[in-house]
Amino acid sequence: MNPVSIFPVPGLPEIVNGAALATLILEGVQRLGLSLESSDVLVVTQKVVSKAEGRVRSLEGVVPSPRAIEIGNRIAFDPRHVEVILSESVRIVREAPRVLITETRHGFVCANAGVDRSNTGGRELLVLLPERPDESAGRLRESLRERSGVAPGVVISDSFGRPWREGQVNVAIGAAGVVALRDYRGQRDPNGYELQGTELGVVDELASAAELVMGKLDRVPVALVRGAAVGGDDTVRRLLRDPATDLFR
Amino acid sequence: MNPVSIFPVPGLPEIVNGAALATLILEGVQRLGLSLESSDVLVVTQKVVSKAEGRVRSLEGVVPSPRAIEIGNRIAFDPRHVEVILSESVRIVREAPRVLITETRHGFVCANAGVDRSNTGGRELLVLLPERPDESAGRLRESLRERSGVAPGVVISDSFGRPWREGQVNVAIGAAGVVALRDYRGQRDPNGYELQGTELGVVDELASAAELVMGKLDRVPVALVRGAAVGGDDTVRRLLRDPATDLFR
Repeated sequence: MNPVSIFPVPGLPEIVNGAALATLILEGVQRLGLSLESSDVLVVTQKVVSKAEGRVRSLEGVVPSPRAIEIGNRIAFDPRHVEVILSESVRIVREAPRVLITETRHGFVCANAGVDRSNTGGRELLVLLPERPDESAGRLRESLRERSGVAPGVVISDSFGRPWREGQVNVAIGAAGVVALRDYRGQRDPNGYELQGTELGVVDELASAAELVMGKLDRVPVALVRGAAVGGDDTVRRLLRDPATDLFR
Repeated sequence: MNPVSIFPVPGLPEIVNGAALATLILEGVQRLGLSLESSDVLVVTQKVVSKAEGRVRSLEGVVPSPRAIEIGNRIAFDPRHVEVILSESVRIVREAPRVLITETRHGFVCANAGVDRSNTGGRELLVLLPERPDESAGRLRESLRERSGVAPGVVISDSFGRPWREGQVNVAIGAAGVVALRDYRGQRDPNGYELQGTELGVVDELASAAELVMGKLDRVPVALVRGAAVGGDDTVRRLLRDPATDLFR
């Protein structure tokens, strides 16, 4: 097996609505002195994809519903932020002081439906998840192919918390041109013993690996993963556990 | 930020009780044509650490208790395997057909208390987690330092399932000489906005990244991660969420 290399893609500007993300990423890859290969995977943080897609709300412009005000008061959370979280969610999974864990319209279970509050140029903004992240990844992959002739894998990542363990980790919320799950079930180890229950969430491992070069403050929103042998054509939607077999709903 | 490289460490033999893991790993690193650096991280799968420590039981020798027999019958699971899982656990978190999720003595919540069944040379074996994985990592780090003069970070990894998402991912169960959590709370982004709730479980991201070169069938139980800038001296124990603030107990 070959080594895997993870490069931070440098020099991307602040991303605004309508930004040509594919072009900016290809310029960044060029700055690395690399040329894109079809077996590469580009991991792109959700924030820049959402901003390029205009999935941003001004906090000032949000009028909270009575329900959002009630929840906001109960858990000490800005009711305008709660309003947008609810609009992105199909249900509340848990609430606690300053914590709202919901199931998003996509089927993700995460804090605040992935709606981050950030301050850009003095304006308080809410950045929402892309509406259909797998399709966002597919479109970005297609744009990269059009502009460079090469279609790498694309993973859109976000950092989610998890039960039982402190610390968020990067996971995939959208993907195109990569494998999501690697299935070892039914295969046999060197002693002929059948491997049980072994499906690996490779696309999440790619997202986590990419975070190692991103950092939170250095504004490196894209990483290039080379040599990972993760070709395929899965979506992240495929990774969502069937509620019927999920023991932690 | 520099690129991160992940090398599979080749050529390790089948590991048996008492194996000199540090020596075998250093020979593998030499085979790669690399010399170890103190900023490197060696990610080692739990299975080889457990085997080297003799944390193995012969399935044949296990006499299940009445409780293990009752649970085994209820969930269609070998009562002898259930017996060993219970002996490694402080409580059952969920049970379902052929699934037993427990909290281990270490505080991990995972399937089967991390007790894997495997067939080695025709014998049915149960491989348990190391008794104190952080200390196992610390001892391995010390042995590496004694034999090479260099003390890299050491992470012991295992693949755990998670709620809501299909697929296991590699996480850290023990660590020495690395940072476990990277804390961005109280720091400010380029617009002066304070980053909230942002602690990253870096040691788990290292474990996930390493899995990309390990594969399940290729028997690559060790990976070398170079360039990740994750120096520190944390334990994985530090990552366990306080039950009082855990919303999914």
